[in-house]
Amino acid sequence: MLRRIYMRIAYDGTDFHGWQRQRGVRTVQEELEGTLQRVMRHPVDLIGSGRTDAGVHAIGHVDSFATDHDMPAERMQRAIQARLPLDISIIEVRDVHPAFHATRSALSKLYRYRIYNALARPVEEFVQRYTYHFWAGLDVDRMQAAAHHFVGKMDFTSLTPKRTVRETMVRTVMRCDVARCGNEVHIDVEGDGFLHNQVRNIAGTLIEVGRGHWEPDRIVPILESRDRNEAGPTAPALGLCLQWVRYPEELLDPNSNIDPPFEQ
Amino acid sequence: MLRRIYMRIAYDGTDFHGWQRQRGVRTVQEELEGTLQRVMRHPVDLIGSGRTDAGVHAIGHVDSFATDHDMPAERMQRAIQARLPLDISIIEVRDVHPAFHATRSALSKLYRYRIYNALARPVEEFVQRYTYHFWAGLDVDRMQAAAHHFVGKMDFTSLTPKRTVRETMVRTVMRCDVARCGNEVHIDVEGDGFLHNQVRNIAGTLIEVGRGHWEPDRIVPILESRDRNEAGPTAPALGLCLQWVRYPEELLDPNSNIDPPFEQ
Repeated sequence: MLRRIYMRIAYDGTDFHGWQRQRGVRTVQEELEGTLQRVMRHPVDLIGSGRTDAGVHAIGHVDSFATDHDMPAERMQRAIQARLPLDISIIEVRDVHPAFHATRSALSKLYRYRIYNALARPVEEFVQRYTYHFWAGLDVDRMQAAAHHFVGKMDFTSLTPKRTVRETMVRTVMRCDVARCGNEVHIDVEGDGFLHNQVRNIAGTLIEVGRGHWEPDRIVPILESRDRNEAGPTAPALGLCLQWVRYPEELLDPNSNIDPPFEQ
Repeated sequence: MLRRIYMRIAYDGTDFHGWQRQRGVRTVQEELEGTLQRVMRHPVDLIGSGRTDAGVHAIGHVDSFATDHDMPAERMQRAIQARLPLDISIIEVRDVHPAFHATRSALSKLYRYRIYNALARPVEEFVQRYTYHFWAGLDVDRMQAAAHHFVGKMDFTSLTPKRTVRETMVRTVMRCDVARCGNEVHIDVEGDGFLHNQVRNIAGTLIEVGRGHWEPDRIVPILESRDRNEAGPTAPALGLCLQWVRYPEELLDPNSNIDPPFEQ
């Protein structure tokens, strides 16, 4: 019987050239597919909830694959885990509905951008691999006022590289929140999907507001311009982490009796 | 005028072969002395509060050196910081009493050993470089009962490699506490000084108790035996971190009028 397997994974992106397989460099997909092939004893084509760029981390990336192996999910997790390097972990393995597709079934995902905003260095809290060190003071209230403008269904052309070509540049951001947490400033962005570099460009733009270079309301003309030059710089990859991906409950149940309303 | 400078530093020990300079490998001392020479414009002999082994971390190592440069301590810190790699940081720089000596003036230091005690992998919380991953369940109450036996002034021959030769193997441990903190178990050991591997061997021995292999009271005959073979294995370096070093207040004041009661 063909089963659809869901895996939730974490990885330290520092030593990976992103999630997606590329010839000649170390990627998360290649590492996982190699391990899965040894455990499942057949080649595995992994479908990811999204590509992450080189240096970007994840604590809730979701991958799916098909297998006819009858190994229980729990044993599968232990067998995969034992063969993985220290910078990847399988948090959860479960059977899901055959119609589940890690990319296309996703309802929304949350990215967090972490800024280490202090004169101190992030190594003093051992987060130098996971935070962008920005010395100058950031005003979180101003950043939050600006962040509200990114919420909604709109065209994000100004927040993605000029070369990006997609059928539509419209995406929906459900929330964009800025909070201080000790020496860190966290920017949480939840959306139904993201254009390339969209979150890092939102972070870079909010930093310009937080340091006082721009007024919070400047976000409105930036979005309207559809011109990448109007927005702030792209914040470095190391501060970004995919926190979770949300799916319809029915698709997470392997036995649910559904005719899913999503294109597969 | 000759000044005595105190520096408190943090480092991620993963990519260092310990604190002390050694030919042909990267060490904290070499990295700092090279940077100090460029900033102070004279060669600097750094005195450290202690050597840490390869892979051991610090968030409160203390170093001292002498200089006749008149640069204010705050500017010194910024100038050094700007030239250091991302895995070292200078937390504090200050003038101290000329009699201050980072090694000999130390009253006590605290080491923390961090165990990631869960089926989950430490990368899920991005602490895989700073914790020892131990899967099997640990009983913290049993560990604490055993830890009490390490407190006091006693001979720690059983807790250091056989080749260790010192004038005396007697050290004073002021406290040894075990606590669970989320998925981690922390072992805090404060002492007036430590034999080589003493804290890692205390950790390895407490793990044997925590997993149920040994009774807590077995620590008494282990200490009495003065035989390294009786104690548990040496816990891996990556879990160990020097938290702080304590000095007499009078020596931290550059102008205090003291005739210090310590050998210099």
